[in-house]
Amino acid sequence: MINSAVILAAGFGSRLKDMTKLRPKGFLPLEGISLIERSIQNLHKCGIKNIYIGTGYLSEYYEELAQKYEGIVCIKSDKFETTSSMYTLYNMRDIIKDDFLLLESDLLYEIKALRLLLEDSRDDIILSSGKTYSNDEVYIQKDKNSNLQNMSKNSDDLEYVSGELVGISKLSMSRYRQMNTIFASCMVSDPKIDYEYIMVQSSKDNPYYVKNSEDLIWCEIDDASHLKRAQTLILPKIKRREMNIKKNILLNPGPATTTNSVKMAQVVPDICPREYEFGDLMEFVSNELSSIVSNSDEYSTILFGGSGTAVVESIISSVVPHDRGIIIVNNGAYGKRMSQIADSYDMNFLEFESSPIEPIDLQKLEEFIKNSKNISHLAVIHNETTTGLLNDLDAFGSLAKKYHIELIVDAMSSYAAIPIDMKKQNIHYLAASSNKNIQGMAGVGFVIANKESIEKLKDIKPRNFYLNLYAQYQNFIKSHQMRFTPPVQTLYALKQAIIEAKEEGIDKRYLRYSKSWETLTKKLKELGLKYLVDDKYHSKIITSIFIPDGVDFDDMHDYFYERDFTIYPGKVADFNTFRVANIGDIDYQDMEAFLILLEEYLYEN
Amino acid sequence: MINSAVILAAGFGSRLKDMTKLRPKGFLPLEGISLIERSIQNLHKCGIKNIYIGTGYLSEYYEELAQKYEGIVCIKSDKFETTSSMYTLYNMRDIIKDDFLLLESDLLYEIKALRLLLEDSRDDIILSSGKTYSNDEVYIQKDKNSNLQNMSKNSDDLEYVSGELVGISKLSMSRYRQMNTIFASCMVSDPKIDYEYIMVQSSKDNPYYVKNSEDLIWCEIDDASHLKRAQTLILPKIKRREMNIKKNILLNPGPATTTNSVKMAQVVPDICPREYEFGDLMEFVSNELSSIVSNSDEYSTILFGGSGTAVVESIISSVVPHDRGIIIVNNGAYGKRMSQIADSYDMNFLEFESSPIEPIDLQKLEEFIKNSKNISHLAVIHNETTTGLLNDLDAFGSLAKKYHIELIVDAMSSYAAIPIDMKKQNIHYLAASSNKNIQGMAGVGFVIANKESIEKLKDIKPRNFYLNLYAQYQNFIKSHQMRFTPPVQTLYALKQAIIEAKEEGIDKRYLRYSKSWETLTKKLKELGLKYLVDDKYHSKIITSIFIPDGVDFDDMHDYFYERDFTIYPGKVADFNTFRVANIGDIDYQDMEAFLILLEEYLYEN
Repeated sequence: MINSAVILAAGFGSRLKDMTKLRPKGFLPLEGISLIERSIQNLHKCGIKNIYIGTGYLSEYYEELAQKYEGIVCIKSDKFETTSSMYTLYNMRDIIKDDFLLLESDLLYEIKALRLLLEDSRDDIILSSGKTYSNDEVYIQKDKNSNLQNMSKNSDDLEYVSGELVGISKLSMSRYRQMNTIFASCMVSDPKIDYEYIMVQSSKDNPYYVKNSEDLIWCEIDDASHLKRAQTLILPKIKRREMNIKKNILLNPGPATTTNSVKMAQVVPDICPREYEFGDLMEFVSNELSSIVSNSDEYSTILFGGSGTAVVESIISSVVPHDRGIIIVNNGAYGKRMSQIADSYDMNFLEFESSPIEPIDLQKLEEFIKNSKNISHLAVIHNETTTGLLNDLDAFGSLAKKYHIELIVDAMSSYAAIPIDMKKQNIHYLAASSNKNIQGMAGVGFVIANKESIEKLKDIKPRNFYLNLYAQYQNFIKSHQMRFTPPVQTLYALKQAIIEAKEEGIDKRYLRYSKSWETLTKKLKELGLKYLVDDKYHSKIITSIFIPDGVDFDDMHDYFYERDFTIYPGKVADFNTFRVANIGDIDYQDMEAFLILLEEYLYEN
Repeated sequence: MINSAVILAAGFGSRLKDMTKLRPKGFLPLEGISLIERSIQNLHKCGIKNIYIGTGYLSEYYEELAQKYEGIVCIKSDKFETTSSMYTLYNMRDIIKDDFLLLESDLLYEIKALRLLLEDSRDDIILSSGKTYSNDEVYIQKDKNSNLQNMSKNSDDLEYVSGELVGISKLSMSRYRQMNTIFASCMVSDPKIDYEYIMVQSSKDNPYYVKNSEDLIWCEIDDASHLKRAQTLILPKIKRREMNIKKNILLNPGPATTTNSVKMAQVVPDICPREYEFGDLMEFVSNELSSIVSNSDEYSTILFGGSGTAVVESIISSVVPHDRGIIIVNNGAYGKRMSQIADSYDMNFLEFESSPIEPIDLQKLEEFIKNSKNISHLAVIHNETTTGLLNDLDAFGSLAKKYHIELIVDAMSSYAAIPIDMKKQNIHYLAASSNKNIQGMAGVGFVIANKESIEKLKDIKPRNFYLNLYAQYQNFIKSHQMRFTPPVQTLYALKQAIIEAKEEGIDKRYLRYSKSWETLTKKLKELGLKYLVDDKYHSKIITSIFIPDGVDFDDMHDYFYERDFTIYPGKVADFNTFRVANIGDIDYQDMEAFLILLEEYLYEN
C-alpha cells in the first residue's frame, strides 16, 4: 500500500525562457490550474496522502502551495543551481520513510498513469509509454521480460527502443537506499547526474520492471512548444478520457461494463469508412483479435456489423458443403440456437443433446459422431451463457481430428477471458463479439477462421448474402474493408478495448474475473444460496443462481437497478434462477458491494 | 443580421441568500467562470458584438466587467428596488437601436440556444424547451402554428402547457417599441411587472413565434438547489455537447457528417439493452422513424444491428412466398445488389434492366410486369446512390396497385430528405439506415413495413435466421427489443439524430441539401465540368461528376482529404466519374469551400 509521493521540482525550467522567470515550471497554468496542482489532485484521488516536494528554484511558490493542501512537505535543495534531479531526490533521504511514487514536476498526465503503478504488485516499476514525438524523449530499452536494461536521451546509446520514460515511477525504500548509495559514490565527480541514470545503474542485479502503456496520454513541458501542445492537444484528450460518466455495474452477461476511455473512443471526427485510414484501423482490430487465440499467419479475423448470433449464422450457413452435414452439440439455449440457424437454411444437421448442467458424456458424443454419416463439421458452445457450464474444447478438438471433421466454436462468453489456442485445440472457426469479455461496445461480431479452411469455401454456393463468410473474408484481405458500411464508431471503441485488454493481459483479466466469481460463490454459499453447475465445470464467468422461495425476480431486479446494479433473468427451463455475470470493467470489490445489497435485500424482504 | 444582445441583470437574486449578498446573481461562479461571462463568451462566439446590460443591484460588478470585454455597455436602473425586469428593459430604450437577443442574467445554457434564434429568419421569437423540472418554470401555451398564446408561472392559468420559457428571445425594434408603449401605459400602476407578461400582451395581434427545442440543455439559477443542479448536472452536459471535435466535411454518400451532439450522445452510462429503459428508447426510435414517412398505426419500423444492405436482404428474403416471384428494377449498382441477394437464396426473380442515367421507361416496365407470371413483389431503388438518379415512386406505387403486387423500396439515400409518403405512394416495405440523411452513426438498419403486409409473413417459412423480418417484428411488438444484442450506443446516437432531424424539419433539411446541390452544380457548370443524370431526374443528394482528362482520382482525393474534405470514387462502368454527396451536417457554405478547393486543384494541376 503506497501512501507517499515524491515530486522533483528543483529545476530552473530554463528552456521555457520568460515563462519561468517568475515561477517554477510546475506552476505553469493550464486552464487556470497549475501543473503541480493538477498532479497533487491526481495523487489525492488515488489515495496518496503524503507528498514530498523536492524544491530549489523559486521554492517559495511550493512553500505557499503547501499551505493550501494537507500533507505536503517541501524539502529545499540548497545546491539546486549546481546539481540535478538525483541530488534533489537524495536530499530528501531523511524524510522519506516508505515506498513511494516518484514524479517529475513538469508532467501533465492522465490519472491512469498513477493507477497502473499502484495496482501492480511489483515493488520497483518504471512507467513507459508509446511514441510521443515530443523531441525530448528519454528512451527505454527493456528485455523480453520487461526488465529495464538501459535508458538514454540518445537512442543511439541503446540497442533498441522499447518505449519512452514517462517520469512517473514506483520505488521501494530498499531501492531508494540503493540509489542513494550509488549516487553518494559519484556525487562529487558528477553532481549533475539525473535520477534516471542512477536507476539504470541500480537496475543491474535486480532490475526495475518496465510497465508499458502504449496509449497513455501525457506530456512533459520543457519549452514553449510543449506548453502549446499540452494546451491544445494533451489536456483536451485527458479531459475527454476522464469525463465524469455515471458508472453502472452490469452483472448481465454482456454488453459488459466498459471503461470511460472505451466510451470516449467512440467520439472521433467523422470519417468515411472507405478511407485507408479506416482500413488501417480495421486491420489492427482484425490482427489483434486473431492474436488473442491464434496467430495471424494461419488465422484471420473477419468482422461483421451485427450481433454475436449474426456471426454464428455466418459460420454455419457458409462452411458446410451442400452435400454434407453438421453435428450441433446442444446443452443450453445457445447450442439450441445453432440448430435453429441450421434448420432455417434446411441444412443437414444432427443435434447431440446433453444436460444443461452436467458435463457432456464424451464417449456418447464419440459414438454419435461415429454413427453419423457424411458429416463435415462439429459445432459447440464453449461457455454456455445460460448456465456458466464450460465445455471441454480440448476433447472436442481431439474428436474432430480423429473423425476428420472441422470444429466450430461459439466462444461468445469465453473469448478474451478463458484461454483458447485455436491451433492447439484444433478449432477451425470461432465466433465472438465486441461487447463481452473484450469490453467494447455492442455492434460488431467476428469470426476467427483457419485460413486453409476458409479458402476452401470458395466452391460452396452461398446460402445468403450479407453474412456470406467467404465473400467478407475475400473482400477484407483485398481492401481491409467490410463489404458493407461498417459500424464506424463501434470499431474505434473496439480498438481501444483491445488496447486495454492487451494492457491488462488476457490471463490477468481472467484472474480478475475469477476473483470476482470466487467472491460471489463464497458469499452465496454463506447465504445458503445454490447455483447451477458444479464449480468443477464452471466457467467462472456467469452464474445461474436459484431464486429463493418467496422472492420475485422483477422486484429483486428493480431493487438492484435503482442502486446501479443490473442482474439478469435465468434462461433454463425447469429451474427458477437469476443470473450474475462477473465480466467487464468491474472487480471483486464491485461484487462485494453487490453481495452486501443482496444480503440486505434477502433479509429485509 | 443580429449584432446586439440585451441582458437583464438588475435583480437581487434574493432567493440565493448569502450567495448574492456580495455579488449579483450573474456573478455566481461555475468552475471558476461566472454565469455572465459564460453568456458573454457564448454571444461573442455567435458574432454578437454589442452587449447592453441592464443593471441595478450591485451594478459596480457589471461596470468592472465592462472594462474587461469590448462592446459592453451597462445601463443602470435607479429604480431596481421597486421595479422588475420589464422596467429594466424599458429603461434601456435610448440606447437600443437595432433588433436584439434578449437574455436573463442568471442563465446557464448551451450555445445552440443562441444559434436556434439567430439562424431562424423570423423577427420575434421566444425560445422554449421541454420539461426541466426546475420548480421555477414559466410555462408557455402556443397554438398549432407555434404562435405564442399565453405564458405564466402558474400552469393553471393556461389551457395547456406547450413548453417552458428559456429566457432567451429575439426581438425586432418595432416589437421592442410596442412593448415599451404597452408598459408605459401600466408602469405606474404595475411597476413590478415582468417582461414576459408584456410579451404576452404584445403578442395578441402579431404573435411571437415560439421556437421549441425539446432537448435543449439549460437552467436558470434562482436558489441554492438550482446552483447545485447547474454544477453537477447541467454544466457537465453542456461541456460534453460542446466538446471540441475536429469537423471533417464528408462528401461521400454516407456515413454523413454528424453534429457534435450526435457524436456525444453515444457516451452514456453502460446499460443492459434488455432493460425497459432501453426498450423505451427503441420504441421512441421506431415510432419516430415510422412517422417520417408514414404513421405508426398502420406502419411499423423494425430495427436491426447491421448495414443498409442487411435490411434490404431482410425484406427480400422474408417477404416473397416460396411459390411466388419478385421483379427487381436494376438501373444501378444498388438495384443489381437486390438481384444478387435474391439469387443467393435461389429465389424466383426477374430483373428489369434500365439505363443508369436515364429515367425508367414506365410503359416498358408495365409490359414487363404484365408478362411476368406469379409475381408477388416489385422492388426498386428510390435514389440510386451510384448516380443520383431519382426513380419515380408514385409511378411504381400505381403500377404495384394496378397489378396487385407489393412494392419494396430501398430508400437508403433518400429517406429523411426527399419526401416519401408510404401510404399515398402505396409502398409496403421501405429500407433505410442510421447513417445517411437521418445523420446518425452507422450500425443500425431498419425496415418500415405496412403492418397488414408484415402480419401475412407468418405463413412463409423463413429463409434465414438473423435477418428474419417477421420474427424481428414479432419480438419487437412484444418486448420493444431486438431479438439479438443491439448496437446500444448507436441507438442512443440515432435517438439524438432523430430529435435533431425533427427540430430542423425534414422539408427544411431537404431545402438545405438542395441549396448545397445547387451551389455545387452551378459551379460545376461554370467550370465546364459535366455530371451524369439530367437535373430533371436528379435527387439533389449525390452527383456523379466526370473526371476531367489528365486528372487522377486518387491524387485529387488525397488533395481534398488533407484539407478535411472527403470525396468518393465513381461506380458506373463506362464512365470515369467521382462522386460528391451533399448530405449530413454541412451546408452550402461548406460546399462553396469545397468548390474553391476544386477550382484551385484543377487550375493548379
